[in-house]
Amino acid sequence: MRRVYVDYAATTPVDPRVFEAMKPFFMEYFGNASSVNSSGAKARQAVEEARAKIAAFMNTDSPEELIFTGSATESNNLVLKGYTLKHGGAKTHIAVSTVEHDCVLNAAKWLKQLGYKVDFIPVDQYGVIDMNALENAIKQGANLVSVIHGNNEIGTIEPIEEIAALCHKNNVLFHTDAAQSFGKIPLDVKKMGIDMMTINAHKLYGPKGVGALYIRKGIELTPLLHGGGHEFGLRSSTENVPGIVGFAKAVELRKEEMKPEAERLTKLRDKLIKGALEIEDSYLNGHPTQRLPNNANFHFNYIEGEAIVLGLDMEGIEASSGSACASKTELPSHVLLAIGLKPEIARGSLRISLGKHNTPEDIDYILQVLPKVVNKLREMSPLKPR
Amino acid sequence: MRRVYVDYAATTPVDPRVFEAMKPFFMEYFGNASSVNSSGAKARQAVEEARAKIAAFMNTDSPEELIFTGSATESNNLVLKGYTLKHGGAKTHIAVSTVEHDCVLNAAKWLKQLGYKVDFIPVDQYGVIDMNALENAIKQGANLVSVIHGNNEIGTIEPIEEIAALCHKNNVLFHTDAAQSFGKIPLDVKKMGIDMMTINAHKLYGPKGVGALYIRKGIELTPLLHGGGHEFGLRSSTENVPGIVGFAKAVELRKEEMKPEAERLTKLRDKLIKGALEIEDSYLNGHPTQRLPNNANFHFNYIEGEAIVLGLDMEGIEASSGSACASKTELPSHVLLAIGLKPEIARGSLRISLGKHNTPEDIDYILQVLPKVVNKLREMSPLKPR
Repeated sequence: MRRVYVDYAATTPVDPRVFEAMKPFFMEYFGNASSVNSSGAKARQAVEEARAKIAAFMNTDSPEELIFTGSATESNNLVLKGYTLKHGGAKTHIAVSTVEHDCVLNAAKWLKQLGYKVDFIPVDQYGVIDMNALENAIKQGANLVSVIHGNNEIGTIEPIEEIAALCHKNNVLFHTDAAQSFGKIPLDVKKMGIDMMTINAHKLYGPKGVGALYIRKGIELTPLLHGGGHEFGLRSSTENVPGIVGFAKAVELRKEEMKPEAERLTKLRDKLIKGALEIEDSYLNGHPTQRLPNNANFHFNYIEGEAIVLGLDMEGIEASSGSACASKTELPSHVLLAIGLKPEIARGSLRISLGKHNTPEDIDYILQVLPKVVNKLREMSPLKPR
Repeated sequence: MRRVYVDYAATTPVDPRVFEAMKPFFMEYFGNASSVNSSGAKARQAVEEARAKIAAFMNTDSPEELIFTGSATESNNLVLKGYTLKHGGAKTHIAVSTVEHDCVLNAAKWLKQLGYKVDFIPVDQYGVIDMNALENAIKQGANLVSVIHGNNEIGTIEPIEEIAALCHKNNVLFHTDAAQSFGKIPLDVKKMGIDMMTINAHKLYGPKGVGALYIRKGIELTPLLHGGGHEFGLRSSTENVPGIVGFAKAVELRKEEMKPEAERLTKLRDKLIKGALEIEDSYLNGHPTQRLPNNANFHFNYIEGEAIVLGLDMEGIEASSGSACASKTELPSHVLLAIGLKPEIARGSLRISLGKHNTPEDIDYILQVLPKVVNKLREMSPLKPR
């Protein structure tokens, strides 16, 4: 059976060149980057070279504006909670969109539960943030805005330059969760006016277990992890040297490969979307053009997304229903509800996220299998009108 | 030049068998353990097998009592902060020893700064906790006690069974940071009465970037990382599958190798201690017998620890002055101050921590080089009486 992995938004395989770069740091250069001895110095050098590479790719003012964490989830939690804790919550007022990743949304909900000021800004039918609502929140005192760059479920790209400009006009900090977009579409923190930015490695052919956070110089956060004072006092823990080295190698590779790959994937994506929409009662979720090059997200009336995923999996196609992170819950996707879908339909989504190993033949195969799976499920569905 | 790495307490090389176990999970079985598709299921299976292995090694009631984190620092922060947050801080009262790792100590200090009740329990000249002081703190209302098992700097093993018994008699929770002792000396959470226990992989020939926390069933903590609800809702983040698999392999290997290795290292350690104490004005820090099999920690009057480390490093011997995590600070070690050393002496410590690659010849070499380095530094020292 043909195997087609199209769940690259959930995670990616490590690029063999990334693996080769990491390899010596497991057994040979294994020192603790905070040790004073020679092995420590070698590890430290590797960490700082990695930091400089990634910082340069996103165009920070200095490498010290980038800290390594254990995941994008950690980076996002550090922004929202670290900002609130730094100011004792008294003067903080956070605004996030309703289509954020679970980690931003649930951190924000938790802070709200504790009594801190948090606003949830609605989006339009394509998942694009309502700029008027955001402006109103800022007028009401919001002083930290966090909006996802490329949506992890529906792929919509938010107008972050416009959001940043609005924030800065009002002296408000702007954070973006770029876990899905970094390395896929251009990101320049200075040009785009980003104050803080979350990224991670395992979405771009780097290893799992390592993320990073760009924090513009001068912004203060209270650490979530107190301890030995690693990462400029912002994230204590022994540095994950192989992971950090692998992250930097993955970023380095994107430098050359990002643009042609984005063009190639956009073509595959559009072919897939066109073909899938020929299925009766099928709809594209997210923005028709302002979307991540590798993301296609559909809903098919009368059937559940998870059933489609399992049906495809039996034919060798590995996709996803919404975000992997939320797949344990039985709840309809909060992103699909936010764009106005009814709960029964918000359970019917299929996310196909493409990556470097996908070929035009993969798309042909998906377009051959998908209608069959959808039709078969619909035949069994009690919801379908007959 | 002979190279002798004796900084195993800071970190260890990954065991080649651990690396082989991890390898397939970077590029072949790379799925997201939370994805519903086949790749996700394979990753999930690997994570759960790893959880079961480690949980069995420490004798938990069920694998679900063990969660994976990004580091021991994270596990320790989760215990102290998660417990305080869970109860809104209103009813919490934490007691920690004065010789805890920086991550416990600094998390505790931060909570105290925020106004929560935190006690710091003194230790004797060997670093052993003062049981009377602890009992008093419990009488004053302490309801969570956190005491390190094997000290990361001076190697002293705390009487955790006795502490656990005292805690349970008073209906108090007991957490231990076993990052340095797990896999080196026996640990059985049920037999020893441990309610929560922090461990990590990179101190036992596993990978950096992965830790774990045992949490006895029924104990509730507020997560530090909100998000998709991974790790039973206690630690959101895409699972670091290769890291977790490597951790389990490292633990599996300790099952057979721990006991003979502890005996072998104890002999080397004692030979080293005996030899080093022949140097004039040299002293052993920590307990003479109740200490980790691989730890030797000395102070040499009139000279600084960091200078000794650098002097040894020039001769190929990689050791450490106190803990790697604290090596960036210029402050004297809080552990050495806690055991009663004067600040100028607390800067003079040398930690030699042994591991699997060390041989009797390594000890001979250290004992040949160390006196020369100490004498040379003393000749230059303005502190030495002449």
